[in-house]
Amino acid sequence: MKSVNLLILLISILFPMKSYSQEIPLTLEDLIPGGKTFNKYRAEIPRQIDWWQDKLTYVKGDSIMIAPSGEKDKPQVLLSLSDLQAGLNLEARLPKSLNMVKFVSPRSNDLLVITADTLYFYDITKKTITARFSNTDKMSFHDWADKSRMLAYTKKNNLFVQTPEGKEYAVTNEVDSQIVVGQSVHRNEFGISKGTFWSPSGKKLAFYRMDQTMVTDYPLVDISTRIATLKDIKYPMAGMKSHHVTVGVYDPESQKTIYLKTGTPKEKYLTNIAWSPDEKSIYIAELNRGQDTCVLRNYDASTGKLLNTLFTETHAKYVEPETPIVFLKNDPTKFLWFSKRDGFNHLYLYDIAGKQLKQITSGAWDVTSFLGFDASGENILYISAEESPIEKHIYKQNLKSGKKQLLSKEEGVHTATLSGSGKYLYDRYTSQYNPGKIAIADVKSNKSYVWHTAKDPYRNVTLPQISLGTIKADDGNADLYYRLIKPLNFDETKKYPVIVYVYGGPHSQLVDNSWMGQARGWDIYMAEKGYIVFTLDNRGTLSRGIDFENITHRQLGVVETQDQMSGVNFLKSLPYVDADRIGVHGWSFGGFMTLNLMLRHPETFKVGVAGGPVTDWKYYEIMYGERYMDSPQENPEGYKNSNMVERAGDLKGRLLLIHGDEDPTVVMQHSLQFLNSAVKKGTHPDFFVYPGHEHNVLGRDRVHLHEHITRYFDDFLK
Amino acid sequence: MKSVNLLILLISILFPMKSYSQEIPLTLEDLIPGGKTFNKYRAEIPRQIDWWQDKLTYVKGDSIMIAPSGEKDKPQVLLSLSDLQAGLNLEARLPKSLNMVKFVSPRSNDLLVITADTLYFYDITKKTITARFSNTDKMSFHDWADKSRMLAYTKKNNLFVQTPEGKEYAVTNEVDSQIVVGQSVHRNEFGISKGTFWSPSGKKLAFYRMDQTMVTDYPLVDISTRIATLKDIKYPMAGMKSHHVTVGVYDPESQKTIYLKTGTPKEKYLTNIAWSPDEKSIYIAELNRGQDTCVLRNYDASTGKLLNTLFTETHAKYVEPETPIVFLKNDPTKFLWFSKRDGFNHLYLYDIAGKQLKQITSGAWDVTSFLGFDASGENILYISAEESPIEKHIYKQNLKSGKKQLLSKEEGVHTATLSGSGKYLYDRYTSQYNPGKIAIADVKSNKSYVWHTAKDPYRNVTLPQISLGTIKADDGNADLYYRLIKPLNFDETKKYPVIVYVYGGPHSQLVDNSWMGQARGWDIYMAEKGYIVFTLDNRGTLSRGIDFENITHRQLGVVETQDQMSGVNFLKSLPYVDADRIGVHGWSFGGFMTLNLMLRHPETFKVGVAGGPVTDWKYYEIMYGERYMDSPQENPEGYKNSNMVERAGDLKGRLLLIHGDEDPTVVMQHSLQFLNSAVKKGTHPDFFVYPGHEHNVLGRDRVHLHEHITRYFDDFLK
Repeated sequence: MKSVNLLILLISILFPMKSYSQEIPLTLEDLIPGGKTFNKYRAEIPRQIDWWQDKLTYVKGDSIMIAPSGEKDKPQVLLSLSDLQAGLNLEARLPKSLNMVKFVSPRSNDLLVITADTLYFYDITKKTITARFSNTDKMSFHDWADKSRMLAYTKKNNLFVQTPEGKEYAVTNEVDSQIVVGQSVHRNEFGISKGTFWSPSGKKLAFYRMDQTMVTDYPLVDISTRIATLKDIKYPMAGMKSHHVTVGVYDPESQKTIYLKTGTPKEKYLTNIAWSPDEKSIYIAELNRGQDTCVLRNYDASTGKLLNTLFTETHAKYVEPETPIVFLKNDPTKFLWFSKRDGFNHLYLYDIAGKQLKQITSGAWDVTSFLGFDASGENILYISAEESPIEKHIYKQNLKSGKKQLLSKEEGVHTATLSGSGKYLYDRYTSQYNPGKIAIADVKSNKSYVWHTAKDPYRNVTLPQISLGTIKADDGNADLYYRLIKPLNFDETKKYPVIVYVYGGPHSQLVDNSWMGQARGWDIYMAEKGYIVFTLDNRGTLSRGIDFENITHRQLGVVETQDQMSGVNFLKSLPYVDADRIGVHGWSFGGFMTLNLMLRHPETFKVGVAGGPVTDWKYYEIMYGERYMDSPQENPEGYKNSNMVERAGDLKGRLLLIHGDEDPTVVMQHSLQFLNSAVKKGTHPDFFVYPGHEHNVLGRDRVHLHEHITRYFDDFLK
Repeated sequence: MKSVNLLILLISILFPMKSYSQEIPLTLEDLIPGGKTFNKYRAEIPRQIDWWQDKLTYVKGDSIMIAPSGEKDKPQVLLSLSDLQAGLNLEARLPKSLNMVKFVSPRSNDLLVITADTLYFYDITKKTITARFSNTDKMSFHDWADKSRMLAYTKKNNLFVQTPEGKEYAVTNEVDSQIVVGQSVHRNEFGISKGTFWSPSGKKLAFYRMDQTMVTDYPLVDISTRIATLKDIKYPMAGMKSHHVTVGVYDPESQKTIYLKTGTPKEKYLTNIAWSPDEKSIYIAELNRGQDTCVLRNYDASTGKLLNTLFTETHAKYVEPETPIVFLKNDPTKFLWFSKRDGFNHLYLYDIAGKQLKQITSGAWDVTSFLGFDASGENILYISAEESPIEKHIYKQNLKSGKKQLLSKEEGVHTATLSGSGKYLYDRYTSQYNPGKIAIADVKSNKSYVWHTAKDPYRNVTLPQISLGTIKADDGNADLYYRLIKPLNFDETKKYPVIVYVYGGPHSQLVDNSWMGQARGWDIYMAEKGYIVFTLDNRGTLSRGIDFENITHRQLGVVETQDQMSGVNFLKSLPYVDADRIGVHGWSFGGFMTLNLMLRHPETFKVGVAGGPVTDWKYYEIMYGERYMDSPQENPEGYKNSNMVERAGDLKGRLLLIHGDEDPTVVMQHSLQFLNSAVKKGTHPDFFVYPGHEHNVLGRDRVHLHEHITRYFDDFLK
């Protein structure tokens, strides 16, 4: 259940902190994103941190700064806004701040400068404009090539390319709007989040073409217009017809396009596109619709012919390729491949003939991301959960010797990026009591210094007590991590109501050793109001290996509910928990889980709030749905057992469903089908709709949402 | 806010009563239509009462019976099911009951017999089939001519005619589905409920043709299908483009069609079609889009030419023609016309030159329906509110002398039909303590006898006390009728919560001297549970003359709310009313009124439930909306003042909105716009949706609806 908008990510801004005085208790305006005072309580981190070659840059006021290279060094001004404006002085509309300025890539001297309708590349060393792309306000899905300075983008359903001089070429000219080119496909599953892929030199452009003519429409309705208007989306539901995707390659020099001959069946997933280093071929991880067989194939980028089928991975449940192959820095005949084939996500070394040379990482833990190569190219850097399932640390490993080194020095959850050459590492991390630190490390020596330490944004506030721990799953084996937040002014002689906040779906991990143990603002708010707030990562969630995750296959909701009930039994064992006042809340898969808990255990839960819930997997989309549930035709019993619509008659407590009426991810049919079933069976859920909202209620309205959820618990659980 | 389906009316069945024992208290299943035991508490009335010439017939078991002609007479069997089956013995599929059998008209010997796919005319005296129409299962909007035995009907958007021998003619062949022929137009306003009009002899057929190509679509969504499907409706909203209607005349003999030359502007209302007695011309009451000018025109039925413009009626607020002209029985050069021009609805006599000959009825009361002529043709029969605004009585009046006679003999609300010749009157009536009586009267002598007296269906039940009364409106002038239901086991020393049940819109009257004062089942239920239930007919409602009604013009909700508050002040004056626990509930216009009361008087009402509410009149349809509000362009201040969406921020109490997601009358945009506004303004209404339901929640689900409404009051008002 992903949603990615690269442009929004690009222009997102880290607001600076303002001073504040002691305010207790915190309000939803303080605690919920979109709240008027929310930014007061965000950890202070420098804005727009970016690698420029081997320098770490950031924005302070109206200047791009270079971070100190060591503890005794001082920040330097790299470029001021006025300098930039002067450099662009021929242009009419100058940028008024540095918010829309960033480096084109860590290895480029070009700054990307976005103005109202023009996009510039500005060379920071030569102080000249090196590319100028016009009419960018009418474009979407921009993708630029740092070396060739070409820009790819879409207009409506077609793909275009502009040269650095602003000359525009139409790559495609599809008349049928149901054929979409240059955009992400397969509903952003399988690691796919974009639709264009420049070759390493930026001379050729691979792109997705998606034919949706055979996919059913789902009618969304926009009620904000004078008379409500239809906004059809293409929504392939589990078991129904899926779109056909192909991959094209465009050569701006010849202005010619070829398509890779990926053949039949047309219903399959072309995932993880990767260019060969010599740009002559393209690698694709091809997954069958059944999602149990993944084949790595290599296609000629000039003719589209299949050159080689490198290897095949299968799994009785599902295979889920999420990362393109990565060629070694020093050897274009070898590449790295992520696989969960030994039960955990690990890196394997292959040659381009498809021969496995060796397994690089191994152990009962997952590699969670690949960072790149050091300057020498002899070592890889990655992040893994080896230290603890609830931490993420940075490792360097020698490709030849396999010798591994832990680079991150403090506990918690680390994220990192490498500098342009691979010499330096930007390491940003938090832990339960650390709101945010940034270290800069020399990869070779692993000497590092902490450049930035964020102050505790709640230093003037008395917060509820947050504790993390584990319980055993009912298989007697798996450790399940939980987070328990006690009410403010906790009195152990009292009995408190509990709210279980749940997600529980694949690819999620709600409990870890990051800032405040990932406690959410609403959790804090409810603890302030006198509720115990409890969250547990059941089997089926992330970073615990494939068996921990795929035990839910073909029966979503069953094992997850067992584990959540283990959590509830733990809660009931606590002397200060009022077992008669247990509530549950979750969104999306967490809404589905809320329904599972309310309807499979109606005697346990008094109140539930299910936001954007899946109520019947047959109304969910093909890619995610069939991975975990197979199709309704293949798995009728599993669909029946996971069907909350059919269980609507089992409702005993108070249940509020909430949905965005333009939700394109979990369509509102889910909630309405549940209501319809409840009406027929004589039970009485409650319902609320956020008009104009999609799968999550975002922006200012998110405060209203949490007021609404809170009121429901106050009405019926308090 | 009307919805008519003639076919459903035709096949509706009056269930016979079953015996029962004492059960207290009554449940929603007993009290709500659709409830499992609802029919146990309906007054017992003979089924399928019908005039056959001057005999009153009804169905008992498997026989059509003739009612006794006097107190000493006995019922006779007219026809048994087996006789009918024998009469139809050549046919494969015989009717299995008399449910689908009725007389073609009171003046015909033909019975209309409906089987699965064939419709017969069966002459009850000759015992032969006189017409046979096939494939009736594929048709809609059947309209038959009793004399010519022709059948008109629609298939999709086109009109067809079948001869008695089953030969089918296509009257129209419109390819564009947005052009609809032979169906009701103008959204069933202006007394229009059908689209075909046979000439008196049944030789020619007038019909409506509606071009909706210029009207916007409203997207309804059906979520019951595998993937939700779009069900667009044509919905002309106030101030937007309206459809174009014309009237065609089809001659089955020549198979030719002409259209009346009704000319421009094309946006107008062609209402109240009437054939001249000689079938040579057609009269139409033409109303301009502004609805302030009505012109009676006469068109040549052979050429379509305008023959004559008879007269024009105007009103500064609105004119609302609802009844076609009626030619005198004995003089085809004179006709009757309903007009409210003197402030009340009265009958006027005109000649066909358009000259007013005289006003027939007059006084400070409304004629509510015209029944017809007596056998001599010298007297007319009608129903009026002359006796009391909350009663309806039957009158006979001599056309020449004007001498008037009250025919109905008992108090209450009478409905009536005349026998084929006009000699006899079927008079059915109830009053507060009379669940249903039927009298048969000789029109000439006014001798009558009570043929049927229904037993009190609640005779074994202790009901809450219902009382009717009046208060003065705040203009110090108008009497406003109310109904007050006290809780069961009422204790005058206690303080009770109150629920105001409200409608308050035009064409309504909720309080009258009919059975139980029109108390609804839910009112009784809530009184059983300990609530006072109060209803008041504010200014703007029916049967009180035009000034009483149109005081609301251009400002719907304002005066109505004042009057409802007069009712609330009266309630507060009662020692047993708890002024801190006043709630309000209403549906449709009553939902709009609920919002008016909750938002204009937030300190008064603690809880409200608004079903299918209008929240902003600009989202309502043109014909009703512009009559009462003019267009948004013409009356911006009135629309603003009546706009509940803008007032959503004034909410203080608890408010539940309920909507059917396929409501084609008050579209769900109303409720969703209100929610959206509340979210932006930070207030918290509640919401519920009945999937698949239209403007009213009908059938079994109506019980669930009332459980849901009840629970809301129990949660927050009790």
